[in-house]
Amino acid sequence: MSSKPVSNETLLQQLRWRYAVKKFDPAQKVSVEDWQTLEQALVLTPSSFGLQPWRFVVITDQATKDQLVPISWGQRQVAEASHVVVFAVRKPLTESDVDRHLVRTAEVRSAPVESLAGFKKLLMKSLVPPPEGFDIHHWAGLQAYIALGNFMTSAAMLGIDTCPMEGIVPEKYDELLGLPSEGYGTVVVCVAGHRAADDKYAVLPKVRFTAEDVVRRIDPR
Amino acid sequence: MSSKPVSNETLLQQLRWRYAVKKFDPAQKVSVEDWQTLEQALVLTPSSFGLQPWRFVVITDQATKDQLVPISWGQRQVAEASHVVVFAVRKPLTESDVDRHLVRTAEVRSAPVESLAGFKKLLMKSLVPPPEGFDIHHWAGLQAYIALGNFMTSAAMLGIDTCPMEGIVPEKYDELLGLPSEGYGTVVVCVAGHRAADDKYAVLPKVRFTAEDVVRRIDPR
Repeated sequence: MSSKPVSNETLLQQLRWRYAVKKFDPAQKVSVEDWQTLEQALVLTPSSFGLQPWRFVVITDQATKDQLVPISWGQRQVAEASHVVVFAVRKPLTESDVDRHLVRTAEVRSAPVESLAGFKKLLMKSLVPPPEGFDIHHWAGLQAYIALGNFMTSAAMLGIDTCPMEGIVPEKYDELLGLPSEGYGTVVVCVAGHRAADDKYAVLPKVRFTAEDVVRRIDPR
Repeated sequence: MSSKPVSNETLLQQLRWRYAVKKFDPAQKVSVEDWQTLEQALVLTPSSFGLQPWRFVVITDQATKDQLVPISWGQRQVAEASHVVVFAVRKPLTESDVDRHLVRTAEVRSAPVESLAGFKKLLMKSLVPPPEGFDIHHWAGLQAYIALGNFMTSAAMLGIDTCPMEGIVPEKYDELLGLPSEGYGTVVVCVAGHRAADDKYAVLPKVRFTAEDVVRRIDPR
Protein backbone atom coordinates (compact mmCIF):
# COMPACT_ATOMS: atom_id res chain seq x y z
CA MET A 1 0.00 0.00 0.00
CA SER A 2 1.32 3.37 -0.93
CA SER A 3 -1.00 5.50 1.20
CA LYS A 4 -2.96 5.23 4.39
CA PRO A 5 -6.45 6.63 3.88
CA VAL A 6 -7.28 6.88 7.59
CA SER A 7 -4.65 7.16 10.31
CA ASN A 8 -4.35 4.54 13.04
CA GLU A 9 -5.10 7.24 15.60
CA THR A 10 -8.29 8.39 13.87
CA LEU A 11 -9.59 4.83 13.52
CA LEU A 12 -9.07 4.00 17.19
CA GLN A 13 -10.24 7.40 18.39
CA GLN A 14 -13.56 6.90 16.61
CA LEU A 15 -13.99 3.30 17.78
CA ARG A 16 -13.42 4.56 21.32
CA TRP A 17 -15.75 7.49 20.77
CA ARG A 18 -18.64 5.28 19.76
CA TYR A 19 -20.83 3.58 22.36
CA ALA A 20 -24.36 2.23 22.46
CA VAL A 21 -26.22 5.52 22.81
CA LYS A 22 -29.14 5.30 25.20
CA LYS A 23 -30.48 8.83 24.74
CA PHE A 24 -30.47 10.52 21.35
CA ASP A 25 -31.12 14.17 20.61
CA PRO A 26 -34.32 14.01 18.53
CA ALA A 27 -33.62 17.45 17.07
CA GLN A 28 -30.32 16.40 15.48
CA LYS A 29 -30.97 14.57 12.26
CA VAL A 30 -28.41 12.80 10.13
CA SER A 31 -27.97 14.92 6.99
CA VAL A 32 -29.20 13.67 3.63
CA GLU A 33 -25.64 13.44 2.35
CA ASP A 34 -24.39 11.50 5.35
CA TRP A 35 -27.34 9.15 5.21
CA GLN A 36 -26.75 8.43 1.54
CA THR A 37 -23.17 7.57 2.44
CA LEU A 38 -24.22 5.21 5.22
CA GLU A 39 -26.76 3.58 2.96
CA GLN A 40 -24.02 3.01 0.40
CA ALA A 41 -21.82 1.58 3.16
CA LEU A 42 -24.62 -0.89 3.93
CA VAL A 43 -24.97 -1.79 0.25
CA LEU A 44 -21.20 -2.38 0.02
CA THR A 45 -21.15 -4.87 2.93
CA PRO A 46 -19.41 -8.13 2.01
CA SER A 47 -21.35 -11.38 2.38
CA SER A 48 -20.79 -15.08 1.92
CA PHE A 49 -20.78 -15.95 -1.81
CA GLY A 50 -21.58 -12.27 -2.33
CA LEU A 51 -25.22 -13.27 -1.99
CA GLN A 52 -26.42 -10.28 0.08
CA PRO A 53 -29.43 -12.14 1.48
CA TRP A 54 -30.71 -8.99 3.16
CA ARG A 55 -33.06 -6.09 3.11
CA PHE A 56 -32.51 -2.90 5.08
CA VAL A 57 -35.66 -1.11 6.16
CA VAL A 58 -34.84 2.52 6.91
CA ILE A 59 -37.42 4.34 8.98
CA THR A 60 -37.51 8.10 9.45
CA ASP A 61 -41.28 8.50 9.73
CA GLN A 62 -41.97 9.60 13.30
CA ALA A 63 -45.34 7.86 13.62
CA THR A 64 -43.79 4.55 12.57
CA LYS A 65 -40.78 5.08 14.86
CA ASP A 66 -43.15 5.72 17.76
CA GLN A 67 -44.88 2.41 17.04
CA LEU A 68 -41.54 0.62 17.44
CA VAL A 69 -41.09 1.59 21.11
CA PRO A 70 -43.52 -0.95 22.60
CA ILE A 71 -42.10 -3.72 20.41
CA SER A 72 -38.54 -2.78 21.43
CA TRP A 73 -38.82 -3.47 25.15
CA GLY A 74 -39.87 0.15 25.68
CA GLN A 75 -36.52 1.50 24.57
CA ARG A 76 -36.93 5.10 23.38
CA GLN A 77 -33.95 5.10 21.01
CA VAL A 78 -36.12 3.87 18.15
CA ALA A 79 -38.34 6.94 18.51
CA GLU A 80 -35.66 9.51 19.28
CA ALA A 81 -32.83 8.60 16.94
CA SER A 82 -32.76 10.16 13.50
CA HIS A 83 -32.80 6.90 11.49
CA VAL A 84 -33.87 3.37 12.36
CA VAL A 85 -32.43 0.51 10.31
CA VAL A 86 -34.14 -2.86 10.49
CA PHE A 87 -31.81 -5.60 9.29
CA ALA A 88 -33.95 -8.31 7.71
CA VAL A 89 -32.95 -11.43 5.79
CA ARG A 90 -34.52 -13.57 3.11
CA LYS A 91 -36.77 -16.20 4.62
CA PRO A 92 -36.77 -18.73 3.12
CA LEU A 93 -33.86 -18.42 0.73
CA THR A 94 -34.72 -20.02 -2.59
CA GLU A 95 -33.38 -20.66 -6.05
CA SER A 96 -34.80 -17.30 -7.13
CA ASP A 97 -32.32 -15.60 -4.77
CA VAL A 98 -29.45 -17.50 -6.32
CA ASP A 99 -30.67 -16.56 -9.81
CA ARG A 100 -31.11 -12.93 -8.85
CA HIS A 101 -27.49 -12.82 -7.71
CA LEU A 102 -26.28 -14.48 -10.89
CA VAL A 103 -28.23 -12.07 -13.08
CA ARG A 104 -26.77 -9.13 -11.19
CA THR A 105 -23.25 -10.57 -11.44
CA ALA A 106 -23.62 -11.08 -15.17
CA GLU A 107 -24.94 -7.54 -15.53
CA VAL A 108 -22.18 -5.87 -13.48
CA ARG A 109 -19.41 -7.90 -15.11
CA SER A 110 -20.82 -7.82 -18.64
CA ALA A 111 -20.77 -11.59 -18.91
CA PRO A 112 -23.44 -13.97 -20.17
CA VAL A 113 -25.35 -15.48 -17.25
CA GLU A 114 -24.68 -18.90 -18.80
CA SER A 115 -20.98 -18.46 -18.03
CA LEU A 116 -21.89 -18.62 -14.34
CA ALA A 117 -23.34 -22.14 -14.50
CA GLY A 118 -20.56 -23.58 -12.32
CA PHE A 119 -21.11 -20.88 -9.70
CA LYS A 120 -24.84 -21.59 -9.73
CA LYS A 121 -24.15 -25.27 -9.13
CA LEU A 122 -21.94 -24.41 -6.15
CA LEU A 123 -24.53 -22.03 -4.69
CA MET A 124 -27.36 -24.52 -5.09
CA LYS A 125 -25.32 -27.32 -3.57
CA SER A 126 -24.33 -25.13 -0.64
CA LEU A 127 -27.64 -23.45 0.08
CA VAL A 128 -30.75 -24.67 -1.78
CA PRO A 129 -31.99 -26.88 -0.26
CA PRO A 130 -29.78 -26.36 2.80
CA PRO A 131 -27.57 -29.39 3.49
CA GLU A 132 -28.52 -31.58 6.47
CA GLY A 133 -27.69 -29.80 9.73
CA PHE A 134 -27.05 -26.44 8.07
CA ASP A 135 -29.33 -23.74 9.50
CA ILE A 136 -29.65 -21.36 6.59
CA HIS A 137 -31.71 -18.80 8.48
CA HIS A 138 -28.91 -18.67 11.04
CA TRP A 139 -26.40 -18.30 8.22
CA ALA A 140 -28.37 -15.44 6.68
CA GLY A 141 -28.51 -13.81 10.12
CA LEU A 142 -24.73 -14.00 10.37
CA GLN A 143 -24.44 -12.12 7.09
CA ALA A 144 -26.75 -9.41 8.45
CA TYR A 145 -24.45 -9.04 11.45
CA ILE A 146 -21.51 -8.35 9.12
CA ALA A 147 -23.64 -5.50 7.82
CA LEU A 148 -24.35 -4.43 11.40
CA GLY A 149 -20.64 -4.37 12.28
CA ASN A 150 -19.76 -2.54 9.10
CA PHE A 151 -22.59 -0.03 9.68
CA MET A 152 -21.56 0.86 13.23
CA THR A 153 -17.90 1.28 12.30
CA SER A 154 -18.73 3.27 9.16
CA ALA A 155 -21.01 5.58 11.15
CA ALA A 156 -18.32 6.07 13.79
CA MET A 157 -15.87 7.12 11.07
CA LEU A 158 -18.28 9.91 10.08
CA GLY A 159 -18.91 10.89 13.70
CA ILE A 160 -22.46 9.55 13.66
CA ASP A 161 -23.79 7.79 16.72
CA THR A 162 -25.51 4.43 16.72
CA CYS A 163 -27.14 1.96 19.05
CA PRO A 164 -27.43 -1.71 18.11
CA MET A 165 -30.62 -3.27 19.47
CA GLU A 166 -31.26 -6.97 19.91
CA GLY A 167 -33.91 -6.19 22.50
CA ILE A 168 -36.78 -6.18 20.06
CA VAL A 169 -39.66 -8.52 19.21
CA PRO A 170 -38.75 -9.60 15.66
CA GLU A 171 -42.20 -11.08 14.95
CA LYS A 172 -43.87 -7.77 15.82
CA TYR A 173 -41.42 -5.89 13.61
CA ASP A 174 -42.21 -8.32 10.80
CA GLU A 175 -45.92 -7.74 11.26
CA LEU A 176 -45.68 -3.94 11.45
CA LEU A 177 -43.43 -3.72 8.40
CA GLY A 178 -45.19 -6.40 6.36
CA LEU A 179 -41.94 -8.28 5.89
CA PRO A 180 -43.13 -11.91 5.71
CA SER A 181 -45.29 -11.27 2.65
CA GLU A 182 -42.16 -9.95 0.93
CA GLY A 183 -40.20 -13.03 2.02
CA TYR A 184 -38.05 -11.37 4.69
CA GLY A 185 -37.70 -11.67 8.46
CA THR A 186 -36.31 -9.19 11.00
CA VAL A 187 -32.96 -10.07 12.54
CA VAL A 188 -31.68 -7.04 14.43
CA VAL A 189 -32.06 -3.26 14.59
CA CYS A 190 -29.57 -0.41 14.69
CA VAL A 191 -30.49 3.22 15.11
CA ALA A 192 -28.36 6.20 14.07
CA GLY A 193 -28.32 9.85 15.02
CA HIS A 194 -26.60 12.03 17.56
CA ARG A 195 -26.26 11.53 21.29
CA ALA A 196 -28.17 13.85 23.63
CA ALA A 197 -25.89 16.19 25.57
CA ASP A 198 -27.10 14.63 28.82
CA ASP A 199 -26.84 10.93 27.93
CA LYS A 200 -25.13 9.76 31.08
CA TYR A 201 -23.82 6.65 29.32
CA ALA A 202 -21.60 8.83 27.14
CA VAL A 203 -19.15 9.46 29.96
CA LEU A 204 -18.96 5.96 31.41
CA PRO A 205 -15.62 4.30 30.72
CA LYS A 206 -15.92 1.70 27.98
CA VAL A 207 -15.81 -1.88 29.31
CA ARG A 208 -13.63 -4.19 27.26
CA PHE A 209 -11.43 -7.08 28.19
CA THR A 210 -7.77 -6.44 27.54
CA ALA A 211 -6.11 -7.76 24.38
CA GLU A 212 -4.26 -10.21 26.61
CA ASP A 213 -7.64 -11.59 27.72
CA VAL A 214 -9.23 -12.08 24.33
CA VAL A 215 -6.37 -12.45 21.86
CA ARG A 216 -4.19 -15.53 21.62
CA ARG A 217 -1.17 -15.21 19.33
CA ILE A 218 0.59 -17.98 17.51
CA ASP A 219 3.80 -16.21 16.53
CA PRO A 220 6.69 -17.55 14.46
CA ARG A 221 8.69 -20.06 16.47
CA MET B 1 -21.21 16.79 15.69
CA SER B 2 -18.68 19.51 15.29
CA SER B 3 -16.16 17.61 13.21
CA LYS B 4 -16.08 14.77 10.71
CA PRO B 5 -13.14 12.50 11.44
CA VAL B 6 -13.28 10.70 8.08
CA SER B 7 -14.81 12.21 4.96
CA ASN B 8 -17.74 10.56 3.22
CA GLU B 9 -15.57 10.16 0.13
CA THR B 10 -12.75 8.40 1.98
CA LEU B 11 -15.14 6.00 3.71
CA LEU B 12 -16.83 4.95 0.48
CA GLN B 13 -13.59 4.90 -1.49
CA GLN B 14 -12.12 2.39 0.97
CA LEU B 15 -15.25 0.24 1.14
CA ARG B 16 -15.14 0.09 -2.66
CA TRP B 17 -11.40 -0.59 -2.63
CA ARG B 18 -11.75 -3.63 -0.40
CA TYR B 19 -12.72 -7.01 -1.83
CA ALA B 20 -12.26 -10.62 -0.79
CA VAL B 21 -8.61 -11.04 -1.80
CA LYS B 22 -7.92 -14.42 -3.36
CA LYS B 23 -4.17 -14.04 -3.81
CA PHE B 24 -2.05 -12.27 -1.22
CA ASP B 25 1.57 -11.17 -1.58
CA PRO B 26 3.33 -13.31 1.04
CA ALA B 27 6.25 -10.87 1.14
CA GLN B 28 4.12 -7.94 2.29
CA LYS B 29 3.49 -8.20 6.00
CA VAL B 30 1.18 -5.99 8.03
CA SER B 31 3.42 -3.76 10.17
CA VAL B 32 3.59 -4.24 13.92
CA GLU B 33 1.99 -0.85 14.49
CA ASP B 34 -0.87 -1.50 12.08
CA TRP B 35 -1.48 -4.91 13.56
CA GLN B 36 -1.65 -3.51 17.06
CA THR B 37 -4.23 -1.05 15.80
CA LEU B 38 -6.33 -3.79 14.18
CA GLU B 39 -6.12 -5.90 17.32
CA GLN B 40 -7.37 -2.93 19.31
CA ALA B 41 -10.17 -2.48 16.79
CA LEU B 42 -11.16 -6.10 17.42
CA VAL B 43 -11.03 -5.58 21.18
CA LEU B 44 -13.24 -2.50 20.85
CA THR B 45 -15.99 -4.37 18.94
CA PRO B 46 -19.44 -3.86 20.49
CA SER B 47 -21.41 -6.91 21.58
CA SER B 48 -24.77 -7.73 23.09
CA PHE B 49 -24.79 -6.89 26.81
CA GLY B 50 -21.13 -5.95 26.27
CA LEU B 51 -20.36 -9.58 26.99
CA GLN B 52 -17.63 -10.12 24.37
CA PRO B 53 -18.10 -13.89 24.25
CA TRP B 54 -15.12 -14.29 21.95
CA ARG B 55 -11.52 -15.17 21.52
CA PHE B 56 -9.41 -14.06 18.57
CA VAL B 57 -6.61 -16.43 17.63
CA VAL B 58 -4.03 -14.53 15.60
CA ILE B 59 -1.66 -16.71 13.61
CA THR B 60 1.53 -15.46 11.98
CA ASP B 61 3.58 -18.64 12.35
CA GLN B 62 4.13 -19.95 8.83
CA ALA B 63 4.14 -23.64 9.77
CA THR B 64 0.77 -23.27 11.49
CA LYS B 65 -0.62 -21.21 8.62
CA ASP B 66 0.46 -23.93 6.19
CA GLN B 67 -1.45 -26.48 8.25
CA LEU B 68 -4.63 -24.45 7.80
CA VAL B 69 -4.73 -24.86 4.00
CA PRO B 70 -6.09 -28.43 3.90
CA ILE B 71 -8.71 -27.59 6.55
CA SER B 72 -9.75 -24.47 4.60
CA TRP B 73 -10.95 -26.19 1.43
CA GLY B 74 -7.45 -25.84 0.00
CA GLN B 75 -7.64 -22.06 -0.09
CA ARG B 76 -4.10 -20.63 -0.08
CA GLN B 77 -5.01 -17.29 1.53
CA VAL B 78 -4.50 -18.72 5.02
CA ALA B 79 -0.89 -19.55 4.14
CA GLU B 80 -0.07 -16.47 2.06
CA ALA B 81 -1.72 -13.64 3.97
CA SER B 82 0.28 -11.85 6.64
CA HIS B 83 -2.11 -12.52 9.54
CA VAL B 84 -4.84 -15.12 10.09
CA VAL B 85 -7.56 -14.34 12.62
CA VAL B 86 -9.70 -17.19 13.87
CA PHE B 87 -12.92 -15.88 15.41
CA ALA B 88 -13.93 -18.28 18.17
CA VAL B 89 -16.71 -18.04 20.74
CA ARG B 90 -17.29 -19.37 24.22
CA LYS B 91 -18.82 -22.83 24.12
CA PRO B 92 -20.71 -23.34 26.32
CA LEU B 93 -21.31 -19.93 27.86
CA THR B 94 -21.62 -20.24 31.61
CA GLU B 95 -22.11 -18.22 34.77
CA SER B 96 -18.35 -17.78 34.96
CA ASP B 97 -18.50 -15.73 31.74
CA VAL B 98 -21.17 -13.51 33.21
CA ASP B 99 -19.09 -13.06 36.37
CA ARG B 100 -15.95 -12.33 34.41
CA HIS B 101 -17.78 -9.53 32.59
CA LEU B 102 -19.13 -8.12 35.84
CA VAL B 103 -15.72 -8.14 37.48
CA ARG B 104 -14.23 -6.35 34.49
CA THR B 105 -17.09 -3.81 34.49
CA ALA B 106 -16.60 -3.11 38.18
CA GLU B 107 -12.87 -2.74 37.63
CA VAL B 108 -13.13 -0.36 34.65
CA ARG B 109 -15.84 1.75 36.26
CA SER B 110 -14.41 1.69 39.78
CA ALA B 111 -17.64 0.35 41.24
CA PRO B 112 -18.19 -2.50 43.70
CA VAL B 113 -19.19 -5.66 41.85
CA GLU B 114 -22.14 -5.94 44.25
CA SER B 115 -23.64 -2.83 42.66
CA LEU B 116 -24.08 -4.87 39.48
CA ALA B 117 -26.40 -7.45 41.04
CA GLY B 118 -29.37 -6.31 38.93
CA PHE B 119 -27.31 -6.56 35.76
CA LYS B 120 -26.19 -10.05 36.75
CA LYS B 121 -29.79 -11.09 37.24
CA LEU B 122 -30.67 -9.81 33.75
CA LEU B 123 -27.71 -11.57 32.16
CA MET B 124 -28.44 -14.86 33.90
CA LYS B 125 -32.12 -14.70 32.98
CA SER B 126 -31.26 -13.93 29.36
CA LEU B 127 -28.40 -16.35 28.82
CA VAL B 128 -27.65 -18.92 31.56
CA PRO B 129 -29.29 -21.32 31.10
CA PRO B 130 -30.47 -20.19 27.66
CA PRO B 131 -34.25 -19.70 27.56
CA GLU B 132 -36.28 -22.32 25.67
CA GLY B 133 -35.79 -21.96 21.94
CA PHE B 134 -32.85 -19.57 22.27
CA ASP B 135 -29.76 -20.93 20.52
CA ILE B 136 -26.97 -19.35 22.53
CA HIS B 137 -24.17 -20.72 20.36
CA HIS B 138 -25.88 -19.07 17.38
CA TRP B 139 -26.17 -15.86 19.40
CA ALA B 140 -22.48 -15.94 20.30
CA GLY B 141 -21.68 -16.52 16.62
CA LEU B 142 -23.67 -13.42 15.71
CA GLN B 143 -21.52 -11.38 18.08
CA ALA B 144 -18.39 -12.75 16.41
CA TYR B 145 -19.76 -11.58 13.06
CA ILE B 146 -20.07 -8.04 14.40
CA ALA B 147 -16.34 -8.33 15.11
CA LEU B 148 -15.80 -9.67 11.59
CA GLY B 149 -17.67 -6.74 10.04
CA ASN B 150 -15.85 -4.24 12.20
CA PHE B 151 -12.50 -5.87 11.42
CA MET B 152 -12.91 -5.79 7.64
CA THR B 153 -14.08 -2.17 7.64
CA SER B 154 -11.35 -1.09 10.07
CA ALA B 155 -8.69 -2.78 7.94
CA ALA B 156 -10.05 -1.12 4.80
CA MET B 157 -9.75 2.27 6.50
CA LEU B 158 -6.03 1.62 7.01
CA GLY B 159 -5.59 0.29 3.46
CA ILE B 160 -5.08 -3.27 4.63
CA ASP B 161 -6.59 -6.10 2.63
CA THR B 162 -8.69 -8.90 4.05
CA CYS B 163 -10.52 -12.03 3.00
CA PRO B 164 -13.36 -13.42 5.13
CA MET B 165 -13.49 -17.21 5.00
CA GLU B 166 -16.47 -19.36 5.90
CA GLY B 167 -15.07 -22.18 3.79
CA ILE B 168 -13.22 -23.86 6.61
CA VAL B 169 -13.72 -26.98 8.72
CA PRO B 170 -14.39 -25.50 12.18
CA GLU B 171 -13.89 -28.81 14.00
CA LYS B 172 -10.44 -29.22 12.46
CA TYR B 173 -9.52 -25.67 13.42
CA ASP B 174 -10.70 -26.41 16.96
CA GLU B 175 -8.56 -29.52 17.07
CA LEU B 176 -5.44 -27.88 15.64
CA LEU B 177 -5.68 -24.87 17.95
CA GLY B 178 -6.78 -26.79 21.03
CA LEU B 179 -9.81 -24.58 21.43
CA PRO B 180 -12.35 -26.98 23.00
CA SER B 181 -10.18 -27.60 26.05
CA GLU B 182 -10.17 -23.82 26.60
CA GLY B 183 -13.95 -23.69 26.19
CA TYR B 184 -14.06 -22.05 22.76
CA GLY B 185 -15.23 -23.08 19.31
CA THR B 186 -14.23 -21.73 15.87
CA VAL B 187 -16.88 -19.69 14.07
CA VAL B 188 -15.23 -17.99 11.10
CA VAL B 189 -11.83 -16.88 9.80
CA CYS B 190 -10.56 -13.65 8.29
CA VAL B 191 -7.08 -13.14 6.91
CA ALA B 192 -5.31 -9.82 6.50
CA GLY B 193 -2.37 -8.65 4.45
CA HIS B 194 -1.79 -7.12 1.05
CA ARG B 195 -3.11 -8.23 -2.32
CA ALA B 196 -0.71 -9.72 -4.85
CA ALA B 197 -0.13 -7.47 -7.85
CA ASP B 198 -1.56 -10.16 -10.10
CA ASP B 199 -4.69 -11.12 -8.15
CA LYS B 200 -7.13 -11.12 -11.04
CA TYR B 201 -10.06 -10.63 -8.67
CA ALA B 202 -8.79 -7.16 -7.80
CA VAL B 203 -9.94 -5.71 -11.08
CA LEU B 204 -13.34 -7.39 -11.35
CA PRO B 205 -16.19 -4.93 -10.85
CA LYS B 206 -17.76 -5.32 -7.41
CA VAL B 207 -21.14 -7.05 -7.51
CA ARG B 208 -23.76 -5.43 -5.32
CA PHE B 209 -27.46 -4.98 -5.68
CA THR B 210 -28.50 -1.36 -6.00
CA ALA B 211 -29.78 0.55 -2.98
CA GLU B 212 -33.19 0.48 -4.65
CA ASP B 213 -33.04 -3.33 -4.56
CA VAL B 214 -32.03 -3.80 -0.92
CA VAL B 215 -33.21 -0.69 0.92
CA ARG B 216 -36.83 0.06 1.68
CA ARG B 217 -37.49 3.51 3.10
CA ILE B 218 -40.35 4.53 5.33
CA ASP B 219 -40.13 8.29 5.04
CA PRO B 220 -42.21 10.92 6.81
CA ARG B 221 -45.70 11.01 5.35
